[in-house]
Amino acid sequence: MITSTNNNQIKNITSLIKKARERKAQRLFVVEGIRAVAEVPGDLLSAVYYVEGFTSSAEGEQFISDVVAKAPDIAIEEVAKSVFNSMSDTVTPQGVLALVKMQEFTLQDVIGQSSNQVAHVMILESLQDPGNMGTIIRTAEGAGATGIIMNNTTVDIYSPKVVRSTMGSIFRVPHIVVTDLCQTIDELKSEFGINVYAAHLKGEKSYDEFDFTSPTAFMIGNEGNGLSDEAAGHATSYLKIPMEGQLESLNASVAASLLMYETHRQRRT
Amino acid sequence: MITSTNNNQIKNITSLIKKARERKAQRLFVVEGIRAVAEVPGDLLSAVYYVEGFTSSAEGEQFISDVVAKAPDIAIEEVAKSVFNSMSDTVTPQGVLALVKMQEFTLQDVIGQSSNQVAHVMILESLQDPGNMGTIIRTAEGAGATGIIMNNTTVDIYSPKVVRSTMGSIFRVPHIVVTDLCQTIDELKSEFGINVYAAHLKGEKSYDEFDFTSPTAFMIGNEGNGLSDEAAGHATSYLKIPMEGQLESLNASVAASLLMYETHRQRRT
Repeated sequence: MITSTNNNQIKNITSLIKKARERKAQRLFVVEGIRAVAEVPGDLLSAVYYVEGFTSSAEGEQFISDVVAKAPDIAIEEVAKSVFNSMSDTVTPQGVLALVKMQEFTLQDVIGQSSNQVAHVMILESLQDPGNMGTIIRTAEGAGATGIIMNNTTVDIYSPKVVRSTMGSIFRVPHIVVTDLCQTIDELKSEFGINVYAAHLKGEKSYDEFDFTSPTAFMIGNEGNGLSDEAAGHATSYLKIPMEGQLESLNASVAASLLMYETHRQRRT
Repeated sequence: MITSTNNNQIKNITSLIKKARERKAQRLFVVEGIRAVAEVPGDLLSAVYYVEGFTSSAEGEQFISDVVAKAPDIAIEEVAKSVFNSMSDTVTPQGVLALVKMQEFTLQDVIGQSSNQVAHVMILESLQDPGNMGTIIRTAEGAGATGIIMNNTTVDIYSPKVVRSTMGSIFRVPHIVVTDLCQTIDELKSEFGINVYAAHLKGEKSYDEFDFTSPTAFMIGNEGNGLSDEAAGHATSYLKIPMEGQLESLNASVAASLLMYETHRQRRT
């Protein structure tokens, strides 16, 4: 049992929870909680830590033996209660956390080419709110989006808050971070024939008047500032989400969800 | 200028920020930030507080004279910087906050009868996340929903986080809190002929296969547990939001937004 916060593994977990830089360097991130750890595919698990006493309940014992079954070769460590609670990112730690390997996706994965799907891509520019980011990934799975492209000033997808709010979708929705979003958008258009739509104040046609059954991507901008002029300038078309009242914009994850589910509706019917 | 955190007005603001009980007792709540205070209708303003030096910029001076123009009879107080920052709920206080009177809405307001609209109502049961609540109110304005009904175990709509995330919609979307949600649902159905839909695992028809052009209400349940069996039992019909992948549910504010915008789409076309 690990009993000291000075233990090197514990110090490393704390730094992986707190620092995007460390996560990037080690290509590892932390997943907390029983349900969330249960969603991690076995081949991505790197280590599992549980609080002392966790395995004294039948459920806890079953949980750990399920972990062993899906990832027989990883380290599984018991941690003293005070030490465990000190490293948790949540107010009510659930007694188990995992070190998880980042997946390596390609642009072909994200646009559905690897899985023979028609492209249905979300392009996120400088999104800042972890809850919005997590919700978009979660909805993307539900709406059958093929993947997500982010620029590198978007909130880190592997931060604990994002991971929590994806409810496991982070393991199932292909995603990549690119340094030059405009270049990638041009590639989507010219090499892969994908229509890239920007939700924009300049949009005149409502989002449900477009045909999203062909290869489609949507751009969603920063919560406060919307899309940059530069990125918006690379769109194939602008669209609008009609709004009543005096509202200036919708929440970013709501706008993204409406576009993804309109695509899903058109492809279902 | 108020220079002490012991000032009674300051103590009262702090308690209104922190305590739902105080807000209910005084029928007052706090709105923070320049844009948010600008959205408050003049007749709802009770007092405005700004940080020392706020009016030394032309924008600050203009802002305060706009407040005076729309609410000539209210108290407007300058507050020392350390005192102002101590009472703010946000990490980066924007230098201005307002005490705002709660509006009194009726069921007739919420179902659109007072404004001659076809009912388009969200019924929220025990929603807990302030961000979800704020996002639902904001989307409700955009989608032209007539109003929102909540039970009294739903997160307080006047908590600072909810108010912030509504982006001003809280002043424009009628809302009421009821003690017996099931009784209210029965009233909506029998007295007002409103179809009450529950997003539910038992739903067999997709949400876009229903006709929402007639008077419509949607029930949305708690983030973790969904709708209670009792509340769901009072629905006219169950509907489903189809989901791909291994997802068990969508975020509550996303589900609500899809239903409201499907209603808006049907009523537009």
